[in-house]
Amino acid sequence: MADKKKKQQKLKARLPRGFTDRSPADIRATDQMVGEIRKVFERYGFDPVETPMFEYTDGLGKFLPDQDRPNEGVFSLQDDDEQWMSLRYDLTAPLARHVAENINEIQLPYRTYRAGWVFRNEKPGPGRFRQFMQFDADTVGAPGVQADAEMCMMMADTMEALGIARGDYVIRVNNRKVLDGVMEAIGLDGEENAGRRLTVLRAIDKLDRLAIEGVRQLLGEGRKDESGDFTPGAGLSATAIDQILNYTGWGESGSGASGVGGGITIDNMRRSFPDAEHVKKGCDELELIWQMAQASGYDNDRIKIDPSVVRGLEYYTGPVYEAELLFDVTNEKGETVQFGSVGGGGRYDGLVKRFTGQDVPATGFSIGVSRLMTALKNLGKFGQEDVVAPVLVTVMDGDTEAMGRYQKFAQDLRNAGVRAEMYQGNWKKFGNQLKYADRRGCPLAIIQGSDEREKGIVQIKDLIEGKRLSGEIADNVTWRESRPAQVEVAEADIVPEIVRMLGEQAEDRAKGG
Amino acid sequence: MADKKKKQQKLKARLPRGFTDRSPADIRATDQMVGEIRKVFERYGFDPVETPMFEYTDGLGKFLPDQDRPNEGVFSLQDDDEQWMSLRYDLTAPLARHVAENINEIQLPYRTYRAGWVFRNEKPGPGRFRQFMQFDADTVGAPGVQADAEMCMMMADTMEALGIARGDYVIRVNNRKVLDGVMEAIGLDGEENAGRRLTVLRAIDKLDRLAIEGVRQLLGEGRKDESGDFTPGAGLSATAIDQILNYTGWGESGSGASGVGGGITIDNMRRSFPDAEHVKKGCDELELIWQMAQASGYDNDRIKIDPSVVRGLEYYTGPVYEAELLFDVTNEKGETVQFGSVGGGGRYDGLVKRFTGQDVPATGFSIGVSRLMTALKNLGKFGQEDVVAPVLVTVMDGDTEAMGRYQKFAQDLRNAGVRAEMYQGNWKKFGNQLKYADRRGCPLAIIQGSDEREKGIVQIKDLIEGKRLSGEIADNVTWRESRPAQVEVAEADIVPEIVRMLGEQAEDRAKGG
Repeated sequence: MADKKKKQQKLKARLPRGFTDRSPADIRATDQMVGEIRKVFERYGFDPVETPMFEYTDGLGKFLPDQDRPNEGVFSLQDDDEQWMSLRYDLTAPLARHVAENINEIQLPYRTYRAGWVFRNEKPGPGRFRQFMQFDADTVGAPGVQADAEMCMMMADTMEALGIARGDYVIRVNNRKVLDGVMEAIGLDGEENAGRRLTVLRAIDKLDRLAIEGVRQLLGEGRKDESGDFTPGAGLSATAIDQILNYTGWGESGSGASGVGGGITIDNMRRSFPDAEHVKKGCDELELIWQMAQASGYDNDRIKIDPSVVRGLEYYTGPVYEAELLFDVTNEKGETVQFGSVGGGGRYDGLVKRFTGQDVPATGFSIGVSRLMTALKNLGKFGQEDVVAPVLVTVMDGDTEAMGRYQKFAQDLRNAGVRAEMYQGNWKKFGNQLKYADRRGCPLAIIQGSDEREKGIVQIKDLIEGKRLSGEIADNVTWRESRPAQVEVAEADIVPEIVRMLGEQAEDRAKGG
Repeated sequence: MADKKKKQQKLKARLPRGFTDRSPADIRATDQMVGEIRKVFERYGFDPVETPMFEYTDGLGKFLPDQDRPNEGVFSLQDDDEQWMSLRYDLTAPLARHVAENINEIQLPYRTYRAGWVFRNEKPGPGRFRQFMQFDADTVGAPGVQADAEMCMMMADTMEALGIARGDYVIRVNNRKVLDGVMEAIGLDGEENAGRRLTVLRAIDKLDRLAIEGVRQLLGEGRKDESGDFTPGAGLSATAIDQILNYTGWGESGSGASGVGGGITIDNMRRSFPDAEHVKKGCDELELIWQMAQASGYDNDRIKIDPSVVRGLEYYTGPVYEAELLFDVTNEKGETVQFGSVGGGGRYDGLVKRFTGQDVPATGFSIGVSRLMTALKNLGKFGQEDVVAPVLVTVMDGDTEAMGRYQKFAQDLRNAGVRAEMYQGNWKKFGNQLKYADRRGCPLAIIQGSDEREKGIVQIKDLIEGKRLSGEIADNVTWRESRPAQVEVAEADIVPEIVRMLGEQAEDRAKGG
């Protein structure tokens, strides 16, 4: 019974939660953006390399920040031979597998980039999808932090290549070694403190949103937010909390250092934990990154040392960096906030070693493609529809000979490089054809009934001008005499006449813009 | 014990069977090819629309040809809410879902294209992957076969846009309605004959490979191939077999009609089953397609009616078409064969109806991207590496100030649009840097030791000329005096000098080609 009932239900057309279709405007804008990013990466000497969507589950490892979720955040299934496969959750773990698998053929350092879809089996939310695109660049076999410095500069150049003005973005840099040293210094090292370490790191990460008092609570007993929800804290001592806040430049003795981002910030980090070996080593690396950036003309406004940068993924072992957009946007709650992070990365010296057993130091970053696209739309970059819709060849007669002619009109236009199509719907209601042309934004329509056919002519209707004359579109074009909205031409003149009329329309658009 | 043993094994770097990584040359060539195809589709008035990798399993339906496999050929998993999701196995079924889901917003006819990865959970083989790329175009809401005719022309134009010469390809067209009529006429209609129908269709599909005798056996008792494997036949009567072979134009009374492909072929199809209603209707549609193609200048060598075209997918309801490449290649067994199909499609009037309950007629085709890429490589099109490798800035000193300078050299070149990189490996063995430059194909290397640094100069090494002088590469360039393989320039002149030297190398390449 139940089975039968199921079958009778009509199949519902819907996507699983967290997945979405992509519109023409989105695809075209993203392609354009990805193309610009690619140019920057190529100029830096990176080449494309790609991996497939699937990897063996054990090869991917477990590095996602939220391990407390079902399936640990990945989509997995068993192959015929019982082995577990997963869809990649980022592009870094698969690259590590690729390098390890081809380690004898690959010439290190190996500089590659790739754009691709990744999958997270997580709870979807507004703007949070279970399939999204990342664009990564990595240098594998690069032991020195000069490679990290280069990544930071490349991220900065990428932002500017996309039209994001200097001052509207910053690359913030920190070092996991420093953070490790901080944890040791306050007694949070060792496997047994993993949970508390995570709480402390997440608290530091929230400095820009919660400011000093909120973070102080999260480092101590916990914090109740405006909605009344209580987040338990890390339970640190008052001394440890002060040390951490001073280290970030937000504490009392660190005041003045917050927001500077260069040598002063590094000095402040050093002073906060003068005896911690890892803090010292990490700060030396940050110093080199900072000086190399300066030498190439990237000042503190573009590449900034920032002790509050954490980065969620667990495989980072050295410098970590983040591209942040600084202009204001309105969030879902109607609040004005800074746009925030659009990508980041860091050093992952241990990922290839999982396979090879040998040290293969590496660093790289990942851009969140749709998030960056959203940012650019906010700035009014890309995303404008600048593709002209096709010329429509309408259908007035259904006999084979007429159909052949209409098809040929379209074909001749295409051969001349003009977008064109013959109406492919049910042609018998001519009104539907014009409605189609209107909703599709067709610039011109070609009409040939049996009268015109006998005379060997066609009518060309200027649909843009027609709209203007009928007052449907506001005339924001400099005033000019109206063009005829319809012209009659011989069949042989269709192509040159259409090209001429499209040219006129393009001129109008240029004047109007 | 067994568990412990497993853990001690080193993690093996490998991909699941049937998946593969993509090289820079493959990615660049494919991007270029996809870009050319996109231009053709845009010119025909199609716009991009994409769907995600996942769909609900019931929404995808079961249309793959080989239903006898485990999981029926798709990768599936259960979502948190127990619903089954599958990775798409083609781009058509997801498009049908997309149209049904947005039927009130979409203006029909809906002309779209998309390139994307699809997945088949099948046994992989040589050149047969479980993830591969398809490039599709579809017109939804197009009841007339003029839309099918347009698809055939667009496939032909696509082949030529990719540089495949006229005569090296053909678009073969048939009609499922005709095939249905043939089945009815020989008494193979009805659910109970589904298996035998499939056997007959597969036999017809093999005409070009097995020729008439092999197919006659497959339609009758069965066939033993050279390896001794026996394939059971459809068990048709001698009369039915003759009828089918005549219908294909390969039989006795049909001889002369085979290979013609136009009106003569259609007439022959009609004559073979004069009383079959579906054959008549299907032939009328083929006649219109053929005449429209003729009217637009696509003769029988480009768009050919061919009664042996079958197409595997089960959702086709009308015209089916296939793009076939006719030039010879050598297969894995060392035999000379025609390259064969690189894509195809047909009319699928029932796919959207599964969701909406209303008729939404549609037609479209799919190009197998990597198969077409292989064909183009065979023809010597695309796939040549024409991207120049980056200029290498070598590292001679590791102090911060020197590192900053090297970085700046690279940065200045990039700002001038030149691909450049600073060596990011362990710099202490200079030989490794030159080996890297060589294997990477770097055209030039910049060298600055402490002596040069003091004088504010650098050495620029011409690595291409160096190779030529040392006789490592054959001199297929017109004889000319050798250039100096190394020059000394002031730091301020690095960029113009590098640009000049790259220009000289480009000239040499142009002459050599």
